[in-house]
Formats: sequence, C-alpha cells, structure tokens
Amino acid sequence: MKRDKPSAAHRSRCPLTAALDLIGDKWTLVILRDVMEGKHRYGEIQASPENIPTNILSNRLRRLVEEGIIEKHAYQERPLRHAYTLTQKGADLLPVLQQAARWGQKYVSNCDTPPDWFFRAKPKDVLGRQQTDRRRRS
Amino acid sequence: MKRDKPSAAHRSRCPLTAALDLIGDKWTLVILRDVMEGKHRYGEIQASPENIPTNILSNRLRRLVEEGIIEKHAYQERPLRHAYTLTQKGADLLPVLQQAARWGQKYVSNCDTPPDWFFRAKPKDVLGRQQTDRRRRS
Repeated sequence: MKRDKPSAAHRSRCPLTAALDLIGDKWTLVILRDVMEGKHRYGEIQASPENIPTNILSNRLRRLVEEGIIEKHAYQERPLRHAYTLTQKGADLLPVLQQAARWGQKYVSNCDTPPDWFFRAKPKDVLGRQQTDRRRRS
Repeated sequence: MKRDKPSAAHRSRCPLTAALDLIGDKWTLVILRDVMEGKHRYGEIQASPENIPTNILSNRLRRLVEEGIIEKHAYQERPLRHAYTLTQKGADLLPVLQQAARWGQKYVSNCDTPPDWFFRAKPKDVLGRQQTDRRRRS
C-alpha cells in the first residue's frame, strides 16, 4: 500500500486535513469521477461538460500519478498515447465521491441523477472495471 | 430544505461537481469539522492546528452562512459575540468528512485517530449536539 511520507506539506495530523491536502479542490474528484466512468485519456476527460482548463488537467493528472492515485501507461506506441487508470488508493476514494454526490443531489437543484452503478459500486468493482478497460485497450 | 438555485456558478449538472462548487477546497471541510466538534466561535476555529489564515476563515464562514450550511447567531450582547452552528444541510456533510478521513487514515502516515464518536456518528447526532451547544451558550 502506498502511503505518503510525513511531510511539511500536511497542515496537521488530522486525517481529514491530510486527505484534503491531496484531494481538496474543485477538480481532482471530477477527474477521478471521469476515470472511474471509463474515461481514461486526456482528451476524453477534457471533453467532459465541466470544461476543465488544460493547464489544470495536466497538473492534476501529474500530481495524481505522483501520489499513486492513478497510473499512467502507454496504450499505443506510434504515435505514443497514454491512458490513466485508478490504483487501489484511487478506487478507495469512491465512497468520498458517492457521499459528496449524494449531498449534491439532495441540496443542489437541477442536478442529473448519476448512472445506476455509481451509488451501488464498491471500490473493488471500480478497480475491476479499470483493469478490464486497460486490457481492452492494450 | 434549502436548495441552491440553479446558477451559472455550477460547472455542470453533475451532483458531485455541484457539491464541489460549494465544498471543494482545502479549508471548508476543516472548518465544518471544527464546528461539528463543538468549536463554534471564530477564535476557537482559528486556534486549530491548521492555522487557517484569517481572511480565508472570514470568507468561508460568510459563504457557508449564505449557502445555509451553517447559521450565525449572537450569543452575547455586550460586547456582541457570534457563534456558528451547523444546519441540517451542514450536518448532512458528515458522511463526506467521515469517508475523506477514513481515506486519510488509510493512506497518509502519521495521522492521529479521530475521536471515537466521529466515525460512528450520524448527521442527526451532530445536529443534536449543535442544538445542545447552542442552548448551553445562550
């Protein structure tokens, strides 16, 4: 299991704060939602309705790889193309996404309903999908 | 139930994104953790180990009141002193905090263990505590 080294970057020893040091922003969980849904390429994530700015997308993907939350792998050689899949550490963020989405559904009007599998899924289901997607692509 | 009006501020109709439009930053959930734990005054939150900058704390408290996630009320007249308590909408964020803290505990080393009640609590327990704290103070 990849654990972060204790670091001056963490604001306190509170595990909530430590998590937010990594995922506490407007974009990270949106990117992870996309990867969970089967969008594994830069262009697929960029095409999502949130219109993520490219500099933010590049920066977040790099940081998520560094943190061991996603993995980057080449799925095509010429031209070289990369895809991103979740690690166990990334898949274990599913309950955070689920609870935040439940709250959004309850309190923000005019939201769409997520696909059926989303609220029922467990991290291991998401991880299994990632591996299937990766085999299909390679 | 207070629901946000549909707004250009929301990046998409995804309920996760809509939630992150309100709580997707490094500080908001840390402040709500403090209020859940019984820190209801500006100075108490400011004294937390994360050392939140005062301009961010003022800004977030104001936004959280505007969003109906916390309520501000005077608990003393001379000099005038305010306290903040969670609404139902705010207490319903507890599962997001719990899941993010669980993930932090699993993946970030050297974190403290939250107090016993934290992982067991339900939003209604948190809401009950808020009301008790408020009666005690007034």
